[in-house]
Formats: sequence, structure tokens, C-alpha cells
Amino acid sequence: MDKYHETIENISPLSKINMHYAKKRLDNLIKPKDSLGKLEAICVQLAGITKSNYFDLDKKILIAYAADHGVYDEGVSTAPQETTYLQIPNFKKGLCAAGVLAKYFNSDILSIDIGINTDNKLKGVEHHKIRKGTSNIAKGAAMTREEALKSIETGIQLTEKCINNGYSLIGIGEMGISNTTPSSAIIALITGLSVEKVTGRGAGLNDDKLANKIAVINRALLINKPDKTDGIDILSKIGGFEIGGMVGSILACASNNVPIVIDGLISYAAALIAYTINPLCSNYLIASHKSGEPGSQSALEILNLSPMFDLNMKLGEGSGAVLAFNIIEAANQLYKKMATFDEVYIGQNPSC
Amino acid sequence: MDKYHETIENISPLSKINMHYAKKRLDNLIKPKDSLGKLEAICVQLAGITKSNYFDLDKKILIAYAADHGVYDEGVSTAPQETTYLQIPNFKKGLCAAGVLAKYFNSDILSIDIGINTDNKLKGVEHHKIRKGTSNIAKGAAMTREEALKSIETGIQLTEKCINNGYSLIGIGEMGISNTTPSSAIIALITGLSVEKVTGRGAGLNDDKLANKIAVINRALLINKPDKTDGIDILSKIGGFEIGGMVGSILACASNNVPIVIDGLISYAAALIAYTINPLCSNYLIASHKSGEPGSQSALEILNLSPMFDLNMKLGEGSGAVLAFNIIEAANQLYKKMATFDEVYIGQNPSC
Repeated sequence: MDKYHETIENISPLSKINMHYAKKRLDNLIKPKDSLGKLEAICVQLAGITKSNYFDLDKKILIAYAADHGVYDEGVSTAPQETTYLQIPNFKKGLCAAGVLAKYFNSDILSIDIGINTDNKLKGVEHHKIRKGTSNIAKGAAMTREEALKSIETGIQLTEKCINNGYSLIGIGEMGISNTTPSSAIIALITGLSVEKVTGRGAGLNDDKLANKIAVINRALLINKPDKTDGIDILSKIGGFEIGGMVGSILACASNNVPIVIDGLISYAAALIAYTINPLCSNYLIASHKSGEPGSQSALEILNLSPMFDLNMKLGEGSGAVLAFNIIEAANQLYKKMATFDEVYIGQNPSC
Repeated sequence: MDKYHETIENISPLSKINMHYAKKRLDNLIKPKDSLGKLEAICVQLAGITKSNYFDLDKKILIAYAADHGVYDEGVSTAPQETTYLQIPNFKKGLCAAGVLAKYFNSDILSIDIGINTDNKLKGVEHHKIRKGTSNIAKGAAMTREEALKSIETGIQLTEKCINNGYSLIGIGEMGISNTTPSSAIIALITGLSVEKVTGRGAGLNDDKLANKIAVINRALLINKPDKTDGIDILSKIGGFEIGGMVGSILACASNNVPIVIDGLISYAAALIAYTINPLCSNYLIASHKSGEPGSQSALEILNLSPMFDLNMKLGEGSGAVLAFNIIEAANQLYKKMATFDEVYIGQNPSC
């Protein structure tokens, strides 16, 4: 069997036994029942994901995929396309938002050129380029079905390498000028909502540019007619190489019982494709922040995710995912280190 | 002038000059304008609070006030009153939620007995007891006006000691069985909403107990007739000693240009009293999480605060405040360490 199918078929439901243990332990900690809210839900989920009663999340990494988009030619972005290749080296250098946050939160970074429109070998970036950017989705398919599968398999292989190297908490990020356009197209298709309802201003479009972006997405959906039940068809027709890489990371984490933290809009689109490929995937996702883009709520509802942050961030890069790392680890600390009622209140003399 | 009035009169508006500088710097960082959302708003606020263009938040402390409440006798709580004195030593021991989180996030803790119903000297707790619990607000005033002022001045003095010892980011927490009852009374009074609308189940009341809690709060407001324009009157008639301590912390931080992170419902009540005393106070507050209790939204609207976490936490202790420390510090790291467009994109060759 090829890597893609092997990975998908290896994805199992969360472990109910371990989730039950975690819930019971949480109910015995010295606090009112359920009073730690989502932090408790995260602990139960982590037990189910890792299939164990206790888990470590010490080694963290942000995997950031960068690629360009042919649809840039339709005037859907405010920033020049070169921004993709100018910005991705700043992840490792610690100069962009995700880079600064990763350093502060003690997370490693893996930056990947999976389809940037450049011949340069960028410093601090691993090169797994599929092509120098997708084709223009307003005129035809973004990529071939083979390229779509290759982008996913690239994500699977890179992520499994991280897992084999001991990373126990993985976040996904991206860099790709114009990538809110394919992402909004994917979200509109899978949620069934109108393009108008899910499309936002990205990095700062004005009213005219927003109207153009909506028209471009409608055209892309009309011309390409992606099959909403076929994740590979969606990715190849209206996706992006970095979105494919993120799909691969999600499939690999789900297949290897590792929690994966998603970021903003682009990662929601990737998560929806992964969910279309195998719905069990969404159980392995932890949502960090609620993106400020309008399609967010509907995408998160399908995935049954409830983000922990309400920060009105609209940056991408993986900045929100990294921000969540220490909150997830804090939830684990509470789970492991808080006392139980039995330990503290039987025979305790609080004055000594 | 006494300490209380001196503190209030020393509170100034945020520095517009420093806020302007911070906004300008944020707009020059290598990201789309405003894309870091509330993290940017926090940086601008911190510049305004500290009256400087750059600031350090390295030394953090949670100040946790513990006290008991006479209204416990009305059956408004599920936990026994002894929980207050049993739990407060667990802050320093790192066994309760706030204690575990403080240790993980490298924050110190100052635990204070400001009115616990015990004669014991509790380990790891500073003793500044005003009285062994308030009087029953369903039957009369919680405390005298002098006791209210003393609780606030205690908070001011302890907080200024922390500030003098170099703490640059202060969070407030509490422990006090029954304290959602006076807090809901304060929030109903100041927001003008009905008691029914702002009162919740605290640590887990059933329907009958919730109805009783609402009746008790209505009675407390009717009997005591607190003057909603007079913060000291509110605190003395329907407050609590730990709420007074928290008011003191807020006034001291505002008076000394130090940011203060609030926690859940009890701290919203304290913040509303501080706001009644001097509306400038609210500019110095950073909201951590949105409490799951129903009065939260209205309280936060008056204070013009927008919490960063949506975690459905209902614990108190200061657990939410501590959780916010590293996110605030992360915002500061972004502000200080991200590159500007000038630094990176002029003459940069991304391939080297």
C-alpha cells in the first residue's frame, strides 16, 4: 500500500478507556467539578489521542509550509508575491511573529518550501518544492491529482520524521501570498455556505478588492467543479501546495496518535480536507485561536472544535498555534500536579 | 492625606505619547497592519500604563486574598466554609490550580488571610485579618465603613510592597466560600441588571439552591440599599474582605503605573468597585478569561475590557490571571523582537 493510504487506514478513534481515566482523575482534583472548562476537555482529549493515562508534551515544533498561488494574478492580494520567499526565512531567524513566539515558547521550527515561486535555495528552509506555485484556479485546476497526493505525502513524511525525532506536540503554520483565496474557496465548498459569507479581507483588502476576490472564488468553483466528497479532488482543483502539506501533517499526527494544533483560516481549510478524507482526523486537532476571517465559525463547527483564544488575530504563519503550546502544557501540568481530595483533605492539618 | 485618598488622587490617564509610539512601532513590524489583534492592543496599553516606549514584565506575582462570608449561613454554597482555610495554603504549596499554574509560568504567589473564619495561623499565608468573616449581608451590612477602608488599604499596602520589590506584572486572585454571592450582588447593583440575570451556579448549585441564592441577593440589596455611586458604601454593605483587598490592589497598580491582570467574577466585582471609586482604574486592567458566570459580559462591558481566553473556566483563585501572564509577555516579545520592514526588506537577499 502507498504511504497515503497506509496513513489514512491507520487512523483510529480516540481511546475511550484513557479518556475515562482522565475524566475521573480531573473530577478528583481539588476544585469544583468541570471548573477548569476547556483545559479539562483538552486533558481528556490528550489522553484519548495518546492512548495513555499520562502524557508528555515537552518537545514542541511548528511545521510551516510555504508556497505560492497562481491566483495571485487575479489581484486578490495586497502584498507582492515575493513576500512569500522574503518572509519564510524569517521563521528560523526569529524575526517574524511565529519565529519570535516559537523562540519564546521554546518550540522548534521546521520551515518548508513546498512550492514557492523562486529558484533560490532559502536559508533555514527545507526544500521539497513540488512546483513554483499552483496554476491560477480562476482559469483551471490548481494542480494535478498526482501533485496533490505528492504535497500530502510530503507533509506526512516530514511530520513522521518529527514524530520519530520525539516531538510530542506539533503545530502547523504557513506562508503563501494569496492563500486566503483557495482557503475560502475550500471552506465555502465544504460548509456549503455562499462565497460571500466566508470570504474576508485577508491582509487588508478594500471593498473593491474584496468584491473581486469573491468573484474570483465563485469563478474558481464554477470552472473547476470540485467534488466535495473527495478531499484529493478539492485540493487539486482549488487548493495550494502548503495546504496539501498541512493536510499531510494532520493525517500523520492522527495516524501516529500525536496531538496537532491548528492555527487560522488556512489550517481550517486543510483540516476540512483532512476531515473529508477521514473524519476521525478532527479528534486529533486542538484549535488555538478563532481567526478573524468570516468563514471561521462554520469551519470550526464542522470540525467540532472550540478555540481557546479570542484574540482577533489575522496573521497566519502558525502564530496562533504556537501561542497555544504553553496553555496546552499548562492544562497537562494541572492534570498531573494538582492534588486530589484524597491526598489533601484526609488527615490534613492546614495550620502546619 | 491618608493612604487611600493619596492613592486615588495619584491615578493618571494612560500616556498618549507612549501609546502613539507603540502603535507606530507595531505598524512597522513585518506583518499586515493590526493582524496580531488583541496582542497589539495589549502592547499599546502597556506603553500607556508604564508611560514608556519599552517595558519589562519579567517579574510576576499573583496576589491571592482569602476571606469568609457571613452569608454562607443562608445556604448559598455547596462547599463547606472550612474549604477557604483548607485551600489557601495550597496556593504556595503548588497543589491547587492557581498554585500549579504559578509554578509552571514562573510567577510568585502572595497568599493573604484578610478575613478567614479561623484562629489558626496558616502556613505560607500572610496574616492581615480584618475580622473572621463578614456579617451576613442578608441581614445587614457586611462590614463597617472603617473595615471596608481598612481592607482596601491593606490591599494597597501589600501591592505597593510588591511593586517596590520589582514586580512588574501583577495578577489578583481569591479564595472565599460563598463569594460569588456578594460579587453577583455588586455586579447587579453597578450594571443595573436584575439579580436573576447576573447570578449563576458558582461551584455547582442545583435549581433550588440557585433560586435561594437569587432571593438572598435580592434581600441583601433591599435591606442594605447600597449607594451605587459610592464604592466604599457598596463594599461595606454587600462586599467581602477579599474583594476589598482586590480593590486595593487595583488602585495601587493604577496609582503606580503597573498593569494588573484580573481573573473571574470576583475580580470583576472588585474592578467595578475600583471603577466606581476612580474610573481611570479600568485602563490599567488586563482581562484574562471570560468567566462562565452569567454576569460576566455586562461587567466587562462597563469596564471596556475584552478577555483573551474563552475557556469556560469557573474556578477563581486567580487561575485565569496566571494563565494570561505568558500571553502578555509573548505580546511584549513580539513588540520588542519582531523585525521592522525597514530592517528586513531593504537590501535583504533572502537566499543568504
